[in-house]
Amino acid sequence: MIHKITPLVLAGGAGTRLWPLSRGQSPKQFLKLDGKHTLLEQTLMRCVGEAFDAQPILVGAVDHRAQLLETMQSLGRKADIVLEPMRRNSCAAIAAGALRALERDRDAVVLVLAADHHIPDVDAFRAAVMQAAEAAARGKIVTFGIRPRHAATGYGYILPKLGDAESAALKIERFVEKPDAETAERYVSEGYLWNSGNFMFRAARFVDELAQHQPEILTAVKAALEKAERDRDFIRLAAEPFSKSPGISVDYAVMEKTAEAAVLPVDYFWTDIGTWDAVSGMVKPDADGNAVVGRGVVLGGRNVMVHSEGAVTTVIGCDDLVVITTRDAVLVARKGATEDVKALVDRLRAEGFAEADGETPAK
Amino acid sequence: MIHKITPLVLAGGAGTRLWPLSRGQSPKQFLKLDGKHTLLEQTLMRCVGEAFDAQPILVGAVDHRAQLLETMQSLGRKADIVLEPMRRNSCAAIAAGALRALERDRDAVVLVLAADHHIPDVDAFRAAVMQAAEAAARGKIVTFGIRPRHAATGYGYILPKLGDAESAALKIERFVEKPDAETAERYVSEGYLWNSGNFMFRAARFVDELAQHQPEILTAVKAALEKAERDRDFIRLAAEPFSKSPGISVDYAVMEKTAEAAVLPVDYFWTDIGTWDAVSGMVKPDADGNAVVGRGVVLGGRNVMVHSEGAVTTVIGCDDLVVITTRDAVLVARKGATEDVKALVDRLRAEGFAEADGETPAK
Repeated sequence: MIHKITPLVLAGGAGTRLWPLSRGQSPKQFLKLDGKHTLLEQTLMRCVGEAFDAQPILVGAVDHRAQLLETMQSLGRKADIVLEPMRRNSCAAIAAGALRALERDRDAVVLVLAADHHIPDVDAFRAAVMQAAEAAARGKIVTFGIRPRHAATGYGYILPKLGDAESAALKIERFVEKPDAETAERYVSEGYLWNSGNFMFRAARFVDELAQHQPEILTAVKAALEKAERDRDFIRLAAEPFSKSPGISVDYAVMEKTAEAAVLPVDYFWTDIGTWDAVSGMVKPDADGNAVVGRGVVLGGRNVMVHSEGAVTTVIGCDDLVVITTRDAVLVARKGATEDVKALVDRLRAEGFAEADGETPAK
Repeated sequence: MIHKITPLVLAGGAGTRLWPLSRGQSPKQFLKLDGKHTLLEQTLMRCVGEAFDAQPILVGAVDHRAQLLETMQSLGRKADIVLEPMRRNSCAAIAAGALRALERDRDAVVLVLAADHHIPDVDAFRAAVMQAAEAAARGKIVTFGIRPRHAATGYGYILPKLGDAESAALKIERFVEKPDAETAERYVSEGYLWNSGNFMFRAARFVDELAQHQPEILTAVKAALEKAERDRDFIRLAAEPFSKSPGISVDYAVMEKTAEAAVLPVDYFWTDIGTWDAVSGMVKPDADGNAVVGRGVVLGGRNVMVHSEGAVTTVIGCDDLVVITTRDAVLVARKGATEDVKALVDRLRAEGFAEADGETPAK
């Protein structure tokens, strides 16, 4: 019998790739890109039903504790909210979540999910989770490998080892870094998969791997959890020991080292929503390919996305554009150029615009 | 000897062609399109020097009295500010100004200027005014005819009568309405001039023409001025008589009827700034053709104008765009499509957006 699956949601991200919406206090996982639910809410809503433990584990930044608590309240659910006093990359965050899962259940099977990914086909996702759970129960550390829909340069890739499959999850030939465009084309043609950064394993198995490959991380995080302050739903990791954890991604720290790594190829639509182009792909357009989230009007033109959380935002006679409005900033970008948001934010910082990092005010 | 010239500035416009900046309380003449001076201020600043009476006459809407007074205070000058209780088109407004000029000086020579036009070459403008003044002193009603720089469809045209010039100001063959594109091409090739709506005449001459061609207007406006409330610099036209004036444009009411009409062909750059395209032509661009008024950044792309009086406004990788930001509205328009602002405002009204007509808040 397979154990109930414990969702372990990594909600500690702090990116600015979706500036002007995503900034300091409003990273991507807390944005309502569809105007209705935050990405974190959507992530948690995918993990409901018989197969899942009703009480997920969230790992996030102490600065975001209010948003994390509000998220659970808005969903009417309880969670263990593990608060990191500082960022120490994904391996330490997953270690904290896995150790907490072990406290609750020494046989826990954990589903590690980024809080800010988009997977619209919930049924396909759950079916994949059930396949991964089976491999995880047998001791595998399973990563979800997405069949590429295009030659993305923004993702790492995984080459599965074919030919000796004993389950849906395959052994791994190798992990590779984000490629250039030409290499990405080759990867896609050669059967590489996108590395989604979502995982599944028995918590005890993962901790054993840490003991073997990353004893420093394990020692630091274990001490931080033992000395954590626990109040209400919060588990506040102790800063002094946690600060000693090396800040390494779980890919480098464990996945590329363990003999138990496996990849489950999946076919569903997935994006880490790294650009406004990706966001515009999530929104249902009208017959002209235009879409408005919030208050706005598009007159003429095609393939325009407006997302306004501030002023009424209007577009006349433009094609292939995204327009994002917050109370204090406006972004107009050609689709295909939204990767340059990072360069824009750097430029705003260099020119002393407080809006580069300032907080997006509450609506 | 030519009399000092009395500037008579028509500041009663109420258009929305430059939405979202121009609206109810903020029509075009009160906008600082260059970030420094309003168009009304610029108009008044063109009329200084030996040749001009230091105290201009403004005619505007009673609702805008505060802005009119502030304009004069910011320039450190006095004016007669004639306030219209309701709009009765340009002939009544000019009649009120001309009658006020006569009160001050029965030999007054009046220069009628729209408050919201753009004429960057002040020296050329003043030289033309001196030529027009000479014809006006001889009893002509002189209109400034601009040599077309392109086949504009947004202006009326004037065909001068060639061959019998006794001065720089020519007799007029005919006035024509705003043409379609094909007709405009023909007009330009046949020597028609743009009808700028700026005039010069002896006030007594104009009033005589009114008596002859528009006695109803003259009677109504005369009574409104006689019964006007005069406090500080304001002359508040009496509503009851003024309301009885027919609302006719000065072109129809006088210019097309009088035997004394003349046109002074001028070569300077002139625009009535009817669209955001026209505004973008007024702003000095950088080497890539991009221009920012207010707080904004343009990254990549060419020929983009940003004008922000609100949120920091950023553009990535776009060509040929205007982006206008106020506190409560954003307009993104392809250059060449800015004529559609009117259709956009109609649509916003139809969809119940208060920002279609609401007041642009003070900065």
